[in-house]
This record gives sequence, structure tokens and C-alpha cells, in this order.
Amino acid sequence: MSLIVQKYGGTSVGTPERILNVAHRIVATQDAGNKVVAVVSAMSGVTDSLIKLARQVSPQPTEREMDVLLATGEQTTIALTAMAINALGHKAVSLTGAQAGIITDGVHTKAKIANISPRRLHQYLKEGFICIVAGFQGETSDGRITTLGRGGSDLTAIAIAAAVKADLCQIFTDVDGVYTCDPRVVPAARKIDEICYDEMLEMASSGSKVMQSRSVEFAKKFGVVFEVRSSFNSNPGTVVKEETADMENVVVRGVSLEKNQAKVTVLQVPDRPGTAAAIFSAIAAENIVIDMIVQSDSVGDTNDISFTLSRDELPRARQAIEGVVKEIAAAGVETNEGVAKLSIIGVGMRSHGGVAARMFEALSRGGINIQVISTSEIKTSVIIDEARLVEAAKLVHEAFGLSE
Amino acid sequence: MSLIVQKYGGTSVGTPERILNVAHRIVATQDAGNKVVAVVSAMSGVTDSLIKLARQVSPQPTEREMDVLLATGEQTTIALTAMAINALGHKAVSLTGAQAGIITDGVHTKAKIANISPRRLHQYLKEGFICIVAGFQGETSDGRITTLGRGGSDLTAIAIAAAVKADLCQIFTDVDGVYTCDPRVVPAARKIDEICYDEMLEMASSGSKVMQSRSVEFAKKFGVVFEVRSSFNSNPGTVVKEETADMENVVVRGVSLEKNQAKVTVLQVPDRPGTAAAIFSAIAAENIVIDMIVQSDSVGDTNDISFTLSRDELPRARQAIEGVVKEIAAAGVETNEGVAKLSIIGVGMRSHGGVAARMFEALSRGGINIQVISTSEIKTSVIIDEARLVEAAKLVHEAFGLSE
Repeated sequence: MSLIVQKYGGTSVGTPERILNVAHRIVATQDAGNKVVAVVSAMSGVTDSLIKLARQVSPQPTEREMDVLLATGEQTTIALTAMAINALGHKAVSLTGAQAGIITDGVHTKAKIANISPRRLHQYLKEGFICIVAGFQGETSDGRITTLGRGGSDLTAIAIAAAVKADLCQIFTDVDGVYTCDPRVVPAARKIDEICYDEMLEMASSGSKVMQSRSVEFAKKFGVVFEVRSSFNSNPGTVVKEETADMENVVVRGVSLEKNQAKVTVLQVPDRPGTAAAIFSAIAAENIVIDMIVQSDSVGDTNDISFTLSRDELPRARQAIEGVVKEIAAAGVETNEGVAKLSIIGVGMRSHGGVAARMFEALSRGGINIQVISTSEIKTSVIIDEARLVEAAKLVHEAFGLSE
Repeated sequence: MSLIVQKYGGTSVGTPERILNVAHRIVATQDAGNKVVAVVSAMSGVTDSLIKLARQVSPQPTEREMDVLLATGEQTTIALTAMAINALGHKAVSLTGAQAGIITDGVHTKAKIANISPRRLHQYLKEGFICIVAGFQGETSDGRITTLGRGGSDLTAIAIAAAVKADLCQIFTDVDGVYTCDPRVVPAARKIDEICYDEMLEMASSGSKVMQSRSVEFAKKFGVVFEVRSSFNSNPGTVVKEETADMENVVVRGVSLEKNQAKVTVLQVPDRPGTAAAIFSAIAAENIVIDMIVQSDSVGDTNDISFTLSRDELPRARQAIEGVVKEIAAAGVETNEGVAKLSIIGVGMRSHGGVAARMFEALSRGGINIQVISTSEIKTSVIIDEARLVEAAKLVHEAFGLSE
């Protein structure tokens, strides 16, 4: 008998009919001879409605109370899901985050899980119950309700899987798994069967938002093997796990795309210590997250320094560096709002040469200009004209044989 | 500095605007130099929507899960109310039933309060917070969420008032207080300033549903003085408290009306032991609640036995006694669906003679026939033709000088 933790997201439980569908899946998993803990999110749309309601009584709702309010979303789903399973003649109980023993720190609206006491879960499982646990929430050790922030339900599932030493953790979502590229952009993209934590993390940080990075990091830290799969069909999904020896045989696991980027270039920055620091300190002071940074080779006694960031942060970034540019006596600032990021990811890059070159050649065949390049051990990213992104993705995807 | 417990019902917190209104009242109470605990219900309509949602996933939702589901209603209100108070620049925290220390038995959907541990409430009050507590809910000693059934939020308020030894408990509702009669029926009815627990209980059990009986019983048991008043104006309400010496000076405190009654008469029941028992056992077996029972004087060797009950229970009652009527060889069954109950209530009846006679005279003046009479120490009830109820209420109300 295996112990399986499943997680169903907001779309999967978005209507009473879909909750019944989820109930059938959970029951089928138990009927196949497994113990089951299912983590569920708020029904899609509910969280937004609650936030809207809060705004009607307060321009800036207290975070402590926001957590109390939002936690009702998942509490509604756990009750409905347990009822639906009971109606199918199976034993199920619902548990809020607090009841499931999820203890967090006290940082409201983005709490971190500090500890899980799975005593009550084990007791119910032992008595033959299916446990339906509210995702996204927990409580502090002094009994305040907290929520875990974006992607919190995935985190709940993975943390519970670690705590109860589950044999498998299944993240049910509205996609079939992790793809070699976004299938809406590259129709030839195919589902990846297995991917290691580090590749998954790079995919997440490069625009393929199947899961939030911190859930993957948590899984990596505690060695939780999990599968991302669809709640709308029975196709096997993508298994995310520790890197295995044969994973390096594949050069590139996937191509990740990120639109809505912007590039900022500070022109002719005097080539002396402290000038780069002055620029990026000014940006950090405004809490603007930047992505890639490139400094051109020194020509004479100045450099051009470029960086990329999310497009909607551009106005704030420009304002933040205005004063600095004058202060350090740079020549000026150029911005480009029409760029996108394309990355190739794979642990195979560590042992295969010429990977970046193959990528650049593919882009070159399409006459696509590379504006910025950035590399890490298992990832190579380029910034290109956003208008050419689809074409670029297809060329790179093809160049690494990902469509086969 | 006084400690005041307030309770706001579903209509009083029915919209974000009304929650803001309630927040202003609570803040004003604190600003007047009081410590405040406010108990709130689910926003009106929310509980019904949740029940509807449950029915969509299960024909007969599990009671344990129904409690988890319904408890979200009050949890939403406490968060919104605390936010609204915070937005007014005052310190407030929300507490679910469980967080407020309300421990109940394990009878889901109609749990009884077993114990209240007000430690956390006292702590927050000491720190200058206004405490906003979810009405209607608690948890079992082993951590399951429970709800208290109809009128549960009133009960929460009164139980908390008892536990924290409040100086006053105010039940804010959509009426100005308890009236000498339903003002929609008798426009001359006036608000009662003070009423004792026993009178309030008789009012509640006779159709004046300002509050559920069990909340009043709880208040009586623990000596909690409470005031029923409107959340939509600043008028003083009705204070409900222990009987005082001068209360007996008033003969009749109020006139209570109950429509939608039905009368059943079993004709010519043989006058021997066990026949009445047979009839009422058959009804009890179907869980039908009956109200008044009258047996006519024996004429020959048979009696007529009449009883009254809620009109919508009539078909079931008729079915329940069909077999018995044949078995005991009674002559048959007559029913009257068009009746109503009118009661006069007052502790003054104990010391004043001729009270019932004065009531019957008043009805007689209007040519209103009395079908059944029932009396208790502080109440006299009659069953009359429902079509004459308004007229009867005005005559009786006038006869006891209640309009002055």
C-alpha cells in the first residue's frame, strides 16, 4: 500500500461539477490500494472576489485579517470535496492548514512553513479516511491564521508529502506536464517525461510558470519526487526528481520563453570603480527586480552597461537611475521595450560542448539579432526582438531536436 | 472602564457598507471608554449560498463537513469587520470560534457550548484590541469545527459575555427591541423597556422570534443581562434580565402571535387508559412537534382529543395517526388548517386575578370564537380562526392597556 499526496489547483476544483470529478479521481486512487492525502486550492475566482470584498471595507486591508479572509477560500473547497467523496460512499475528512498541523512563521500573506506535525493526518489515514487538506494556509505557533502566498498550495502538497514520507506527490493542474517549449508558441513541443529539480527551477525562473520556484526548491531540499499532470485527462505527466546519471545524455531539456521584457542601456559609463554599484543600488533601493546584466568591453575609458527587467517596471527603473546617470557623468540612457528572453535549459550542457554556439547559429539562420547573452551552468539565455520570438523559439527548439 | 459584548446579526453586516457602519458603532463604543468584544454573524444570504453549493456536490452533505463549510461565513465577516475597524485607525483582531476558545460537544450542525477559555480574548483586550469573534461556531476538544445551529450567534455573544464577565451584552438586530405585540399587526404596539428571562422565553416560544429560546435560557442560567436593540438607529432597546419585584405590577407584558397553525381533533376516543398515549406516541415516532393538547370533558364513554401544531406538519401528522384511530376505534379525525395562536404573557399573572377572563371578554366583544385554551403560570394562549387574528390582537392588546 502506497501513500500518495495529490494536489488539485483552483481550475481543477473551479465548479461543483469539477469538484465531483476530482472526488472520483481521489476515490479511484484509494480504490487502487493507496492511502490518499489531497491538497486543494480555493475554487478559481474565489480569492479574487475576496480581495475585492476586502477593498470595499478598507483601502489597505491589514495583512493579518487578509489571511483570515483568504483562508476561507480553501476551507470552502475542502468541505465540498470531502462531502463529494462521502457522497460516493467513501470515508473522507477535511482539514484546514492548522488542523493538518502546518505551522508557519508569522509573516502574514507570505508565510514560510516552519514545521508540520502530521499526527492527525496519520491518525485519520490509519482509520481509513481520505484526508482533504486546505492548501496555501497554516497557522503560527500562537494560533494566528497565515497564508503562504503565490503557489502556496503546491508548497503545502510538497511539504506534506515530505512530512508524511509519501511514496509519490502528484500536482494536478490544467496542463499535461512540463513541455519542451510553450505548445501555443511551438506546436511541435512535446511533454517532458522526467526533469531534475535544477532544470525545473531554471524553467520556472525563465518564464515556464508551471510551478513557483520555492515549491521546487522545497521538494529538492527534502527529496520529494513529484509529478505534474492534468486533472482533466489520464495522461501521465512530468516527473520531477533528483538528477540521475542518464539525464546528462540530453543536451537541452527545454526552451523557455519570457515575453514583456525591457532592456535599459546606460551609455558611456566612466570606467572607474563604483559606477556600476551606483546604478544598481539606485534600482535596488526601489525594490525593482532586474534579470540580466551585461557590461560591454571597455572602449577608451567608458563602458555601456545594459540590464533587462520586466517591462512594467521600466518607468520606475528609468526614474530611479535618472539622478545617478548625471552624478556619474554617463552619456545617457537608452531603453528598448520590445524585447523578450529565450533560454535553453539542460543539465547536459555541463558535459556537452558547443551548445551555445548551436543556439546562436540557429538564430542566425533566421536572421535574428542577439542583443544580450547570459549563461549559467545549465542555462543559456538571450534577449531578442520580441516580434521575432515565435520564429526564434521554433528554430532553437528544432536545432536541439526537441520535437522528436 | 466597562467591558461590553456586542452582537451584530447577518442583516446588520449584510453588505460592505453595513460592515463599515458596524465598525463605526464598535469604535464609538470603545471611544466612550469601554473594552469591546463584538460577535458577528455571516453576511445575510451567505449561509444559504453555501448550503446551495453543498447540495451541488452531495444530496445529503455530511454534517461534519457542513460545519467546516458554514464556518467560513462568519470567518469572512470577522476579517472584514476587523479590517474596517483597522481602516478607522483603531486596533482590532478577528477570532474564529475556535480561536476565541469556544469549546463545544461533538454534535455537528447543532453543537452545545461546553466551555469557553477566554484567555486569548483577555490578552487581546488587555493590549487594547477590539476583539471581533465569529458567532455560531466553535470547536470540539479534539479540534473539529462545529456550528451551534439556529440562533447560534446570539448564543455565542451571551456565552462570551458570561465567560468574560461582561458588564453588558448588546444584541444588535434589525428590530428596535421586543414589542408588546408585532407592530405590523398592532400599530399601537410599543417597545418594552425591560422584560425578565421567563417572559422573554414565553414570548420566544409563542411566536415572537426576536431570539431563540436557548440563548435566553443560557443568559438566565448564567445571569447575563442583555439588551436587544437596532443596529440601524441609536434608540435604546429592550433589556432582558432577572425578574425584579416591580415587574409583577404589570399584568401582561406582551401579546404574542403565531400564524400558520393547524388543529387536529380525534373524535369520540374511547374513554379508557392508553388511548391518548397511543395517539401521541404515533406522532412522536414521526418527530412531529405538537403544541397544545386539550381533551374535552367526557360525554358518555368517549372524549374528543384536540391538539395543535405547525400547519406544514399537518399532512405528516394525519398520516401518523391514521392507523391508530382505527386501532383504538375512535370515530374519526377532523382537521382545521385555518387557525392561529394568540398568547398573553406576563409575570404579573401570578399575582393578579381575572386575567384570562379579561382576555376572553375582549375576544367575545369582537365575536371571536375561542377553539382551544391553554394556560401556564405566566401565559394564557388561545387558538382562534386565523382570519380574525389581527382583530383579536388589537382587542386583547387594548384590553390590557398595552398601547399606553
